[in-house]
Order: sequence, then C-alpha cells, then structure tokens
Amino acid sequence: MNVTSKTHDIATTDCQRVSQVLARVGEKWSVLIIMLLASGPHRFTAIKRAVNGISQRMLTLCLRGLERDGLIKRTVHAVMPPHVEYSLTPLGQSLTEPVMALGGWALAHVADIDAAREAFDNAEAAPAPGTR
Amino acid sequence: MNVTSKTHDIATTDCQRVSQVLARVGEKWSVLIIMLLASGPHRFTAIKRAVNGISQRMLTLCLRGLERDGLIKRTVHAVMPPHVEYSLTPLGQSLTEPVMALGGWALAHVADIDAAREAFDNAEAAPAPGTR
Repeated sequence: MNVTSKTHDIATTDCQRVSQVLARVGEKWSVLIIMLLASGPHRFTAIKRAVNGISQRMLTLCLRGLERDGLIKRTVHAVMPPHVEYSLTPLGQSLTEPVMALGGWALAHVADIDAAREAFDNAEAAPAPGTR
Repeated sequence: MNVTSKTHDIATTDCQRVSQVLARVGEKWSVLIIMLLASGPHRFTAIKRAVNGISQRMLTLCLRGLERDGLIKRTVHAVMPPHVEYSLTPLGQSLTEPVMALGGWALAHVADIDAAREAFDNAEAAPAPGTR
C-alpha cells in the first residue's frame, strides 16, 4: 500500500504480512492438512486417504512446505516396518485457533454469500433501471 | 476428505467450506481491500492509490468479486463530478474480526516462521547424520 499518513504506513506493513500469511494458510490443501492434524498425528498414507483428491506429489510438497514453515513436524519411527508420522508443532497448534475462528465465520455465512451471489447475478441478468 | 467415522465426515464438510472461504479471503488483493475499507468508505481511485501495485483491471475484477459475495457495497453518488464509493456491508464488517485475528497471529509469528525456514534450509544444506 502506498498512502500518506503514518497510521496508514503501519497498517500497510500489517496488511502485507497478513496477506502473506493468509496466502499460505489459505492454500486449500494446507488448511485441510492442518485441520486433520489438529485431531492428532497421522501417517503419510492416512493423510493421503483423508485429504481426498490430493496427488502423492502435491501432498509431499505441501507437507514439506508446512514442515519448512515450522507448522508441522516429521517423525521417522524406526520400527518394523518403519513409518513416518506428521504432527502439529506448538506453532502449528497455535494457528488452529484463528483458522477455526475464520472457519466459524465461514460456516455461519456460507448461505449469506450464496444468497448475495444469486441476487447479484439476477440483478446483472435484469435490465438496469433507466437503460430502456 | 474421505474418512470413515461420522465425526470425521462432519469435520470434512467443515474443512471444505472453510478452505473455500479461506481461498477467497486469503486472496492477497481482497484482504488488502477489506482491511482498507474497514477504516471507512473509499473511492475507486483512493483504493487504487492505497493498494500499491494493483492494475486497474485487477482492481475492477476484485471489487466486483467482493460485491458479488456481498462483502462490499458500490454506491454511485450523483454529484458533479459523479463518483463511485465502495464500503463494507454488515457481512463484510463481520469478516474483518476473524481476518484481523488471523492477522494478529501472523504478526506475532512471522519471525517464528522465518526462523523455522532458515533452520530447515540449513539442515537441508548440511549432510544428514548417517548419510556419510
């Protein structure tokens, strides 16, 4: 943002950081993985089964991105057969609360958004007053 | 998601709705516009100036998308010269709170994420124990 007052400059930096984080946590698969892991650690194959439609390669990339951001932890269990488990870190745990708050808003207002879209599309389809 | 228990089925629907909303509100420009309008109504040109780097076409598309979702309202003032003003609807206002909550998390943890990334990248660069 590029505005004149000091107050707006501060808000600007906030905006950019917020939008960066929203872009990351807003990514569809990341949200689903974080919400799944909020219920406890899961193995790779269990995540793949739960997150319907994700490819093996995309899941690998997502998990790696979340691990790199410090939101999830990858643990290799040296048992027979060996297996890899993913869990939320304390940082990832702390993210679940605001994500669920936004989720609560979403659940409460999905119908409002759908109704708004329908009204908008109907208004578009009808001739505007004064155009005929 | 595709899981067996009833509890998980419910969580699944929630997940999908949440991720849809996150995808929408997580869109970089939308977030900046909603946060700007949280401070009051703005004209098109003022939004374009404030949201640095957005093209005229992209801003038009974004505003139209937000209006269609019922989050912002477009008002044409029949003054001389006429001007168009954008403001948050009550639905848009209600979204600012959870978005700011997530924004608060972002501001509090940007440094943690940066540190986690640096540690991850350093670990990648160093040979893992047992690989030589």
